Amino acid sequence: MSTKAAPQRETAETLAKKQKQISISEFFAKNRHLLGFDNPRKALLTAIKEMVDNSLDACEDMGTPPDIFVAIEPGGRENRFRITVRDNGPGILKAQVPSVFGKLLYGSKFHGYRQQRGQQGIGVSAAGLYAMLTTGKAVEIKTKTGPRRKAYSCQLRIDTQHNRPDRLGEKDIEWEDVPHGTEVAMELEGTYSRGRHSVDSYLEQTAITNPHAQITYRTPDGEERVFERATTEMPRPTQAIKPHPYGVELGVLLKMVKETKAKQLAEFFQSEFSRVGNKVAQEICLSAKADPKSNPHRLSRGTVDELYHAIQKTKISAPPTDCISPIGDTLLLKSLQKEVEADFYHTVTRSPAVYRGMPFCIEAGIAYGGGLTGDDPARLLRFANRVPLLYQQAGCAVTKATIETAWRNYRLQQSRGAMPVGPMIIVVHMASVWVPFTSESKEAVASYPEIMKEIKLALQECGRKLGTFLRKRRREEDEAKKRSYIEKYIPQIGIALQDILGINDKKRDDACENLKTVLERSRKM
Amino acid sequence: MSTKAAPQRETAETLAKKQKQISISEFFAKNRHLLGFDNPRKALLTAIKEMVDNSLDACEDMGTPPDIFVAIEPGGRENRFRITVRDNGPGILKAQVPSVFGKLLYGSKFHGYRQQRGQQGIGVSAAGLYAMLTTGKAVEIKTKTGPRRKAYSCQLRIDTQHNRPDRLGEKDIEWEDVPHGTEVAMELEGTYSRGRHSVDSYLEQTAITNPHAQITYRTPDGEERVFERATTEMPRPTQAIKPHPYGVELGVLLKMVKETKAKQLAEFFQSEFSRVGNKVAQEICLSAKADPKSNPHRLSRGTVDELYHAIQKTKISAPPTDCISPIGDTLLLKSLQKEVEADFYHTVTRSPAVYRGMPFCIEAGIAYGGGLTGDDPARLLRFANRVPLLYQQAGCAVTKATIETAWRNYRLQQSRGAMPVGPMIIVVHMASVWVPFTSESKEAVASYPEIMKEIKLALQECGRKLGTFLRKRRREEDEAKKRSYIEKYIPQIGIALQDILGINDKKRDDACENLKTVLERSRKM
Repeated sequence: MSTKAAPQRETAETLAKKQKQISISEFFAKNRHLLGFDNPRKALLTAIKEMVDNSLDACEDMGTPPDIFVAIEPGGRENRFRITVRDNGPGILKAQVPSVFGKLLYGSKFHGYRQQRGQQGIGVSAAGLYAMLTTGKAVEIKTKTGPRRKAYSCQLRIDTQHNRPDRLGEKDIEWEDVPHGTEVAMELEGTYSRGRHSVDSYLEQTAITNPHAQITYRTPDGEERVFERATTEMPRPTQAIKPHPYGVELGVLLKMVKETKAKQLAEFFQSEFSRVGNKVAQEICLSAKADPKSNPHRLSRGTVDELYHAIQKTKISAPPTDCISPIGDTLLLKSLQKEVEADFYHTVTRSPAVYRGMPFCIEAGIAYGGGLTGDDPARLLRFANRVPLLYQQAGCAVTKATIETAWRNYRLQQSRGAMPVGPMIIVVHMASVWVPFTSESKEAVASYPEIMKEIKLALQECGRKLGTFLRKRRREEDEAKKRSYIEKYIPQIGIALQDILGINDKKRDDACENLKTVLERSRKM
Repeated sequence: MSTKAAPQRETAETLAKKQKQISISEFFAKNRHLLGFDNPRKALLTAIKEMVDNSLDACEDMGTPPDIFVAIEPGGRENRFRITVRDNGPGILKAQVPSVFGKLLYGSKFHGYRQQRGQQGIGVSAAGLYAMLTTGKAVEIKTKTGPRRKAYSCQLRIDTQHNRPDRLGEKDIEWEDVPHGTEVAMELEGTYSRGRHSVDSYLEQTAITNPHAQITYRTPDGEERVFERATTEMPRPTQAIKPHPYGVELGVLLKMVKETKAKQLAEFFQSEFSRVGNKVAQEICLSAKADPKSNPHRLSRGTVDELYHAIQKTKISAPPTDCISPIGDTLLLKSLQKEVEADFYHTVTRSPAVYRGMPFCIEAGIAYGGGLTGDDPARLLRFANRVPLLYQQAGCAVTKATIETAWRNYRLQQSRGAMPVGPMIIVVHMASVWVPFTSESKEAVASYPEIMKEIKLALQECGRKLGTFLRKRRREEDEAKKRSYIEKYIPQIGIALQDILGINDKKRDDACENLKTVLERSRKM
């Protein structure tokens, strides 16, 4: 038995002594499930996912068809693996390496609005943090920024208390594997297995949505799988866009007027936002009773509040959509046909829509029947900016929208609050300049009403086509059944007729033929 | 039409220019759904929840029965509300006010292991951040640390770019409302409504699990509801505990040996961990082939790795459980009976268990039948450290464990992957020194296997009792049905006998009576 002092009664003074800053690394180390490191199996997948996503982004930034190498090797102890991911991207400048790989919330993608896989500057540093937590080993990095340059190599540790990287053993080296690119390796605690939530499954699904990438994958058993590049055509390069006025909140607007370089209010609107020309800028000012020539830095909080409300009332075009690069319904169909053997396929790419001022685009596809079997709930494949989402299905807007779609209208079974039942795969892809994930681990999409609506519309379109297909198929089955009755019983009638009328075999067969024609005709009327 | 330059082809150099630090406030401002501010309705609830949770924690820290005042008033514009929460806690020192209310990831609760509502140092600052984002207005704070002291009042804004609070208009004031305590007020965009996910529902459920608190609530319509204190007995005060060796990862252990004040390894284990005495410390050292007298600061990474694995192999008692304060099955039953009119109740408080070295305790309760109606899925009420969880039901370990429980064994209907169906309310409470939430908004519990297992065991225990009740009730119903047959047909048989045997009415009635007795007896055998 341990003896303990009675708990202290706290006062403002005693509490003050306990209050202190929490570093972001400490926070995520303690809450590592927020980053997708709940358990060893998921941890292995999450680490590889973050590294591969970064590599794909880097190659696309450079306009180079990605060549990605992924290896998982057994580590120094049981349940430890050494993972390596190498790409042919632009490489990283020496000075940036520590922050990119050793600091949480650091990156190039957060402050813009552009469709990319990474967006928060957390992922790969989090993987390194987890590796360090579970094996104590530092992350190893090699990077090279051009064919005639030397490569740079170093090891990194994260100082969690200060969210600060410590660099060890850095040196310039010769590295011939790639003309330019980056290789990251780390040892971490993990469990390797196959199945739906595995690294294998993640790479297979990644290949579906990234036909321009070549991925070579070496499993812990030493087996090598190559996901061949299906096209050398790169996806349409995406552009960063300025914020759309409808998506900017009052607090952000207050900050923007303070920080703008524009000298006049009307100019401020035109230079800082997308879709605002002179006419719209004047309209907003007029509606807020603000002088278009006034200095934005000197506006009162009240005036900015008026401007904010004026924006909501002014008609402004939807944000540009060339910043979004969907897979496209044709390519999605092809991928689905390649992956799944089925009787029916349909894919849809919706027109871009907007949530909180951010453009996004929903694509959906259905494969039904054929090699797919059974009376199980349909299988749902979810993607965001071409990245497969393997976890947290229940909490995802895609799942909710699928469940809330009335599949009975399309001749499928569905219990209340459940997935439709049938031999079916449903694919949904959200492409956006900013995907609102429900957690830092980016496993599920938040249920913004505009997003839910678009997913439902896409699924309904697929569903209607499926309903038509199923109706037609059922009619054909009925036909076939009736036809089989005709074929079964007419010869018997023929024999009976022959008996009654005493006709010869030829006449009997003619009568049967006639009977068949008449019945077929009547059935069709 | 806007014209645009072709997207730039990035190099290591151009990318480096874009890479920068992201402040934690910026991150959460952009991802405010992570903190529970997805939409105006939820935002109003989340802000009040964070403020009330803080107030309850503060009063309990002081050992004072909480007296909480909550008000929602219409704000300066449509869809804006001014919310105020006042408590009689210990108050906050002047110097601490800006950081506590104006800085994300700052607080007294993160670095200890103790059962409290707050744990991350995010909540109330996040509410202030959201208020500022949507109305541009600063948070107002009044606080007083003792009856004979002056109160302190100020306004705070968060500088998101630097996660830094700016203080405005601070002054010392007279404040007679409370002897000591804190009042926080802010204006934010919100939607007020009633129903399952409302402020009203949150406060009702809070009253169930906090019978020692008095809560006065003024609605936007000016109506005043008082949730009376049911007991002045405070919950057992909880203590902070040291980490348990089983819950410490290699990375943390490496850091602990570096930072300890202990001079010898054996002493290090005894002073830094719970449940480690001299015997266990020696055992760990022996198993890792490390000298118990060696200086912890000078251990090699390899030795610490050996020590880490030695810990896993050494038998160490479970962490102390007096750090946990469950509601208790008796009080939970009372609360349930007070709240819900039903035919059957059962509640369970499990013995504490451990996940990742952290003690926790699961409590569950079921109410069935009576005023509850219908063939809908059972209603699930989830609580963590006495706080009701109103959102993200689908993604919560509690929901998953409920769905994975085989309710058919207890005579309830249940489809695969769905909640059991019936006139039933299920309550689950998790009390722990560290609840692993699936997001910063603390709406759902992460599915650690140990937690899932405990929830299922608690539900199974309730389920078995319910099964027994339902079996008994069904038997009684069958009995009643049979009895009604006897009562219906025996008089007819009497009349028939009278006819056949020509007996008088008295004899007929005697015969009926005999028949009834014989049948009742045979039925019971």
